[in-house]
Amino acid sequence: MSTQTRTTTDDGNTVNGIHLDTLQATVNAIASDPMLGQCRFRASNTWLGGNHNRSTITGFYGAKQEIAHQQTFELHADEPPILAGHDEGANPVEHLLNALAACVTTSMVAHAAVHGIHIETLKSELEGDIDLNGFLGLDSSVPKGFTDIRVRFTVRTDAGNEERLKQLAAFSPVLNTLTKGTQVMITVNGR
Amino acid sequence: MSTQTRTTTDDGNTVNGIHLDTLQATVNAIASDPMLGQCRFRASNTWLGGNHNRSTITGFYGAKQEIAHQQTFELHADEPPILAGHDEGANPVEHLLNALAACVTTSMVAHAAVHGIHIETLKSELEGDIDLNGFLGLDSSVPKGFTDIRVRFTVRTDAGNEERLKQLAAFSPVLNTLTKGTQVMITVNGR
Repeated sequence: MSTQTRTTTDDGNTVNGIHLDTLQATVNAIASDPMLGQCRFRASNTWLGGNHNRSTITGFYGAKQEIAHQQTFELHADEPPILAGHDEGANPVEHLLNALAACVTTSMVAHAAVHGIHIETLKSELEGDIDLNGFLGLDSSVPKGFTDIRVRFTVRTDAGNEERLKQLAAFSPVLNTLTKGTQVMITVNGR
Repeated sequence: MSTQTRTTTDDGNTVNGIHLDTLQATVNAIASDPMLGQCRFRASNTWLGGNHNRSTITGFYGAKQEIAHQQTFELHADEPPILAGHDEGANPVEHLLNALAACVTTSMVAHAAVHGIHIETLKSELEGDIDLNGFLGLDSSVPKGFTDIRVRFTVRTDAGNEERLKQLAAFSPVLNTLTKGTQVMITVNGR
């Protein structure tokens, strides 16, 4: 496991490795035409047998157009042997923790850049509680999902910025989705 | 993009590629000692500069012990250029869709195996709505997270199983986390 971190070298237009002109151009465009902010993000998934499946992510809809990623992303999920899998990928709830870590990190860093808060290094440790009695159907009174997730950031920045960064975490879309919930509609059709 | 799918070859003890003896042993153990079902899943994340960060997943706590994965999983997140990134990974909300796709798929397949429902192929397409006016702080009345996610499964199985599979999706931990919400506690400490 690599422990590499990068200390960003910023100039006037780049803070925390974020090009402020690029970010500001997007913000200004959406501010002048709010419909540009409406996005539809997407993933396709293929079952590969057992607990192993793979998601493919190629692009999304935003700024009133289809936008292709510069590469195709493939993400594998599996379960460990104790849950009848073969460990060919992180399991789905670990993928959820990754999504949360990535989103809160990005939200902090980008909003900090806009506010002129320089970050040297930023790491986090996440831990979430799930009681498998729920998922396995052994006790219908037990929640099936995460009941509690703890995210512990360690940051190298000017003293006093820690509390401001914690407040900026509140902008994270994944954090908001997890704490406020979202509607999910599932359909299953034969082929 | 590969379009490979696998049609599982099942025998008496294997349904949908899931070894029922292995799964049943875990279920029986937790049924006889519910504390064995209490799990703590984990991820570590390191900021790599700009919108790029990397999660590392090595193991979890369950069955009253620390359990190491058979390999270390690394997951990269970034943003597309329009969001001031370099597309070095799926973005955080796309990672969230992957977690949902993986979890509902696994939940359907495993519970179907226990119920003797054979699945030949299973694919899904996910799409979720986010209005960036929320994340960017342009309109505080706009939700910052996903407001609606649609998951469309296409399955090859015996006719009539589609509705049963849809019902089994309700066991998914990620689905339950997203629709019911969870508590997330964030701390930010200097180093």
